[in-house]
Order: sequence, then structure tokens, then C-alpha cells
Amino acid sequence: MQQRTPHVVIIGGGFGGLAVARSLRKAPVNITLVDKRNHHVFQPLLYQVATAELNPSDIAYPIRAALSKQRNVRVLLAEAKTIDTAGKRVVLDDGALQYDYLIVATGATHSYFGKNEWEQYAPGLKSIEDALEIRRRVFLAYEAAERESDPVLQREWLTFAVVGAGPTGVELSGALGEIGLHTLAHDFRSIDPTQVKVVLFEGGDRVLRAYPEKLSAAAKRALEKRHVEVRLGGRVTGIDGRGVTVEGADGVETRVGTRTVLWAAGVMASPLAASLGAPLDRSGRVVVLPDLSVPEHPEVYVIGDLAKMISKGAEVPGVAQGALQGGKHVAAIIAREVRSGSRTPAAARPAFSYWDKGNMATIGRASAVAATKRFAVSGFLAWMMWWVVHIIFLVGFRSRVMVMLTWAWSWLTFKRGARLITGAPGPLPAIHLLDASGAPALPAGAAPIRLDRGTV
Amino acid sequence: MQQRTPHVVIIGGGFGGLAVARSLRKAPVNITLVDKRNHHVFQPLLYQVATAELNPSDIAYPIRAALSKQRNVRVLLAEAKTIDTAGKRVVLDDGALQYDYLIVATGATHSYFGKNEWEQYAPGLKSIEDALEIRRRVFLAYEAAERESDPVLQREWLTFAVVGAGPTGVELSGALGEIGLHTLAHDFRSIDPTQVKVVLFEGGDRVLRAYPEKLSAAAKRALEKRHVEVRLGGRVTGIDGRGVTVEGADGVETRVGTRTVLWAAGVMASPLAASLGAPLDRSGRVVVLPDLSVPEHPEVYVIGDLAKMISKGAEVPGVAQGALQGGKHVAAIIAREVRSGSRTPAAARPAFSYWDKGNMATIGRASAVAATKRFAVSGFLAWMMWWVVHIIFLVGFRSRVMVMLTWAWSWLTFKRGARLITGAPGPLPAIHLLDASGAPALPAGAAPIRLDRGTV
Repeated sequence: MQQRTPHVVIIGGGFGGLAVARSLRKAPVNITLVDKRNHHVFQPLLYQVATAELNPSDIAYPIRAALSKQRNVRVLLAEAKTIDTAGKRVVLDDGALQYDYLIVATGATHSYFGKNEWEQYAPGLKSIEDALEIRRRVFLAYEAAERESDPVLQREWLTFAVVGAGPTGVELSGALGEIGLHTLAHDFRSIDPTQVKVVLFEGGDRVLRAYPEKLSAAAKRALEKRHVEVRLGGRVTGIDGRGVTVEGADGVETRVGTRTVLWAAGVMASPLAASLGAPLDRSGRVVVLPDLSVPEHPEVYVIGDLAKMISKGAEVPGVAQGALQGGKHVAAIIAREVRSGSRTPAAARPAFSYWDKGNMATIGRASAVAATKRFAVSGFLAWMMWWVVHIIFLVGFRSRVMVMLTWAWSWLTFKRGARLITGAPGPLPAIHLLDASGAPALPAGAAPIRLDRGTV
Repeated sequence: MQQRTPHVVIIGGGFGGLAVARSLRKAPVNITLVDKRNHHVFQPLLYQVATAELNPSDIAYPIRAALSKQRNVRVLLAEAKTIDTAGKRVVLDDGALQYDYLIVATGATHSYFGKNEWEQYAPGLKSIEDALEIRRRVFLAYEAAERESDPVLQREWLTFAVVGAGPTGVELSGALGEIGLHTLAHDFRSIDPTQVKVVLFEGGDRVLRAYPEKLSAAAKRALEKRHVEVRLGGRVTGIDGRGVTVEGADGVETRVGTRTVLWAAGVMASPLAASLGAPLDRSGRVVVLPDLSVPEHPEVYVIGDLAKMISKGAEVPGVAQGALQGGKHVAAIIAREVRSGSRTPAAARPAFSYWDKGNMATIGRASAVAATKRFAVSGFLAWMMWWVVHIIFLVGFRSRVMVMLTWAWSWLTFKRGARLITGAPGPLPAIHLLDASGAPALPAGAAPIRLDRGTV
């Protein structure tokens, strides 16, 4: 091979990209990791930031700090715009990078199935910013409900809809149910906690379709205990600022009035994939060869949620383990080639083999589901497993300790520490003020507070 | 007095407003606390959020949660627009509140001495959003410096200017110095930590003018040890996107090239004060009577940074203790009047008496200054005192434990846990890419990475 040290460019600092960089720490290569954000996000816990359980920095870590001791890596904060496979160049927003090996691991983004106008009403959950926006909307809805004197409108503010009952949708709606039941029970004067309602919409016939049926049923029961109404088999046909419209299996449309809709349904591979010139599937993912390289470009690999990876005839699920193991696989191929000095054709390389360690999702306090090939458990035991696994995998020593303590604290006190509404100090949602007749929260015998009704 | 329960309206949930509400917990009144944010901020530690030491929720706490057990309080998320003292009404953004007693405690905001165009280049530090914006700018500057191949431009990115050497300015610049020296030392490949420079501008002849001269000198030495250049006696005459211009005592203008300027100089009382129709001082603060009420309106009080409070002939400093003690004083007057059923004229009420517990400011690791009437200390002992006092006064049990652990962790590891760049996912600052000749960070013997220079 060439005399000079090969340059490996990694786009994306998620689980896949970081795994490649770390696995190449002893390889004689120069690595440049490009990400448009400065931090790695521990995505499986993002919903806990959205629901005010954890702080952003509990689950996010500067990529630069994660790799600071690895001398053959350089981290660049930049956005990759296109990939020029012929010229072996990654075009950035303000320059370009030449590569010998390229790993594309930019993940997925939300897809609204062509209804992009829904995005403003139903934010998804992929980044720290998304999580803070969801947190802002959820807690602002309670503030608005506190001030609303019209009972119909108050119900709208106290109704939360989640679209999609995969792990994210289930975890979000479970947490929203508990916020209504426990966290906020004593904090408001005009809100009756039993009025809080969470509706989880799922097009399929059960929640958590990737899990055994037994666990789907257990998860549904656990959700219902938390005042989550699970609506299966319907198709969401409309989302606007006042509610969600669903068409049932019988073709009849119903409507749920709500001011807060969260999107946990479709994902779409990030648009960078298109510039590779490789075949894409319906979700925009790159259909990679068994070794995870791109057809006709053995020096270009796609891993994680951006790739349609096949292992032992089955599709690899879009989870952290898939990205992580894909990254290690690719790093091993590159290290071997660089050391041997010769490039192996894609067909002669080992195929990626995914080891399914199982799935787990948490529904709330002391309640989760966990499934591997050998067993399926739900309830407290699953929750303990979930807890241990997530603590172990969290990036960074400090995060681990802090998250453990935060969880212990909120478990003991039923409180959530991170209930801050921050961000765009824009206008509050237009709301009615309570008027004299609608002030149920004052102590008995108190004179009503006179409130002039303002324009809405 | 009247038969119905009197209605006490408090505007602002800072130290002053919260103190009033809490001190009235047993009084036969209905309280409404209005704030435009949902959280109380522990302002003395805000600079630690700005410098990525602490998380927002370590120092901010939902006002609603702080008062949830106090049944005679209602918390409203709303912005007070004006005060109609004749009609005894607070006009909100979308309604109005009638009051029997009013406490205005909305604090202060930044003042750019009429140069409002400086604000975009030199953000101040009053809110959680401000702190996150400063954090974003500081860490983005390092990212930009990492990518900058022109040494002059790189110096600009690695130079940080702070205007104003009161406690906030001193604490910010000390922390910025340590970030350059310790936190980021190993994380970048193209940055020489000794190139990082912090310049602290102060118009007066010493830093921390509210402290004894001995401590000012100690603070200056401590800052200089952290590579902070302290420039005294100059007047800032220009701030733009590329630097700060200062006119020295000799009338000569000099310029410091920097991309990051932080404002810790002027404060201005919040504009709500003007609608009270009371006399204001030069900073827009309300000149209150000795009992802290507003002339001719014994039912209206102003406390905290919004008031010019006089105690024993001296002005009460704009610190947390001043607001807190003012709040307690006012609450005691109100409680007494409500219980006795008769209103005392302002002149017959007890005058506010401020108990100066002393001042302290921290400069960095194991370095602080503390002064009371009896003693003045600096160094490690002062830092230990600072630590204990701040831990004790932090709102909420969880914050205390978390902050203690976070501090312990960063003290032991020299790391900062909250180094996330979040917020407006807008374009990165326009920067040059390193070109082939300017890639000093690659291991010896590595081939240069080819980088096409992009348009800037």
C-alpha cells in the first residue's frame, strides 16, 4: 500500500462513528471525525431529558473529550454536505477533506411520511435540542392549563398525544403519565391530576412490535396503569395545533383534542446518503454489501441507522448495538488492510455478523420489559436489568455517577430535577386567565382574586 | 381591615420575591407570585453554568415546586407589563391582577450605557439562557480556533475579553483562564494552550471595588496566575465582532483582537419600575422610602436590585442578601398589618436595616476572596468558606448534593462536565479550514491531510 499514513474520515460521532474511531486507536492511520455537533448523545436516554428526569450533560459528552487521549484522531466541528466518491472527498460547509477510507454514520432523522407540516405541531426526539423543546412544550402545557378557566380548553392542555409505540413512544408516554400522576400532583392549584391524559397512537396491532407478544401485553398494561390510553390499529390522518385526527381500522375518523403532540413514528435516513450514489431503500438507507461497504467503493462504509445492514439473513435493528458492532466490524477490516498493505475486495472480506444482545424498554418507576433470545421478562426485574445495563454503557465516569444519583433521588422523592422551561423567550401560548368564578385553588373562605379577562 | 382575605401580588421569583412569599406562609393572605420564567435562578452561580461547570438545573429550580407545599400561594407564569397604582392592578400580557399589597422584585438587566449595538457582540449574564449562550460562544471559539490556520485569526479566537471587574467579571475571567489552562489542554490538536488569553477590562483602578484593597490585590494576582491580563483604568469605546477598543487614562486608544466578549459591566433596573410613577435613580432603580415602600403608596413595595435601598445611611449592595433581607422586612410589615387589621403609615413603620454578612468571590480552583467587617481573607481558606456558604444556600436538597459532587469531580479531574454546545443549530462561525501546511497536530511522520480551502 501507499507509504504515507492512510487517512480515515468518519462522519458522525454517534455510537457507530465513535466505535470506529476507538477501535482504530492502535492502527497506523490518521483519523478525522467530523460532526456538526460537539457532543455525542446517549440516545436511549434522550427521552429522560425530554421528561425532565436527566440533564443534557448527563447523557451527552463532548466528542473531543471522549477521544482526547487518542493521538491519531482529530475532531472537526463541521457539517458534511456531500460526498464525492470519485474524487474521494467529503465536501464540508466550508472546505473539503480528502480520504483513503470513509465511514458514513450520520444516522436518521424524523420522517413525517410526506406531511412535513406536522413537524411544527409534533416534534420528534433525536437531539438534545429536540429533547429540550419537548420538555418546554410539556411543562408549558401545564402552566397554560393552570391558567385556563374553560374546562374544555383545560382538557386540551392536559392531554398529551404520542404517535408511534416503538421504544421511544412507549418510554415517552409512560414518563408523561407519571409526570401527571406523581411529579406535578402538588404543584398546581387549578389542575386535578386525574384530568391528565396521555394517548399513545400506534398503527400496528400492539405496542413494541420488536418484542415478544407477551411483553407487548405487559407493556400495555403498565402504560394503562399510568393513565396512558393505548389506541392501536388507527392511522393518524391529521395533526394541527388543537388535536390529532385518527382513522380507525373501520374507516371512521375520530379526533382527540390536545395541544401537545410528540412524534415517535417514522424515521428517515439522513440526506447525506443520497450523495453516495449507492442504492437506497424506502427509508433512504444505504443498502450496503455484507461487509458494510458501498457497492463499487470498497473504501466507503455505511453503518448504524443510515445503513440497511443484513446479518444472517435478517435486518439489523436500528439500535445502539447495531451501530456499535457495525463500527467495530469496519474498524477491524480497515486495521487488517492497513497493516497488510493490500486492499481486499469487498466480496472476500468477512460479512458483518450481528450479535443480538436483546432489547429493553422502560415504562416508568420499577417497570420495564426486556427480551433476549432466551428469555422475556417484565416488571421490576426487567427494570433492574435496564438500570444496570444503561449505567454501564453511559459514556464517561461522571455521567454514570450523576445519573445513578439522579435516578435514586427521583425514585425516592417522585420528583424530577430538571423541570426548567428554557429557550426562545418568546410569547407564552395565548391563554385565558382564570376569572373570579374559576379559581378553585384558593383556600376555603378566601376571597376570589379579581382577574380582568384579557384579550386572547 | 376588610373582611375578605387580602391579596398579595409578588412580581418576580428571585431571592426577594421568594423571601416575601415564604415569610408570609402563616399570614392570613392569598398570595399570587408572577414570573415570566418558571424557575428561580441561584444567580451567584450562574457563571458556573456559563463556564460549563454546572448544569442549568443544578442552580435553577421551578418556582412552583419551591412553593408547592405552601397552600396560600399561587404561581402564575406571566409577564407583568405595567402597574396601575391608582387602580391597584398589575396588567399582565393577557389579563390583569387586582392587589391589596404589591411587591415588585423584578431585578435588573444589562445596560450597555446607551451602546445597545454592543449587545450582539458582548452578551451579559442574568438568565439561564444568557449562560447557555455564553457557554456556546466560548466553546465554539475553541472549535473555530482548532480549524483556523492563520495564526493571527487563531489568536483572535483564543482571546477572550470580559468587560467589568465586579464579582461576575472576576469569576468569569478566572474560570475562562482555567478552561484554557486545564480543561481543554488535551482536547485539541492545533491549539497551544499557552496561546489562550483572557483580558479583563475595568474602568476603575482595581478589581472588586466593593472589597478591601488588600483583597483586590490578591484577586488580581490570582487572576494573573490563570493567564488573565487585568487592564485597569481604561474606558471601553468600541466593541464589534473582531475586538474591543479601549481608551486608556492617557487618552490613547488601543485595540484587542477577540471574537468573544462578555459583558459584566453595567446593570439597569428592569423597565417595569417606570410605571410605578415613583422617583428613579440614574440606573432606573426606584428610590424607596426607609420601609421599602413607594412614596404615596404604602401598599406597594420594591425590593432587591430594582430598588435603591438605604440602610443606616449607606446604599444596600445589589446582592442576594440585600434582596432576601428586604423581602423578609416587607413580609413582616404586611403580616403585622393584616393581623392587626389596620394600615400603618409608611413613616411609622420600622426602617429596613441591612445586615452585611460580607462578600465573597471565587477566582478558580482553591482560590477566592472573602470579606466581612471583621476580617478579609484570600486563597484556600476563602475558597473553603465560599464553598460552604454556597452549598448551604442552594435551593433544594437535590441541587445541593449534585452540585457538591459535581464540584468534587471537577476539582479532582480538572474536567468540566457540561461542555455542550447547544442552541440555535445555525451556521458555524465562518472559519478557514486548516490547509495542508497548517496541520501541526498530526503525529510525527504522518502525511498531511489535504484540505481544500473553502470560501469563507
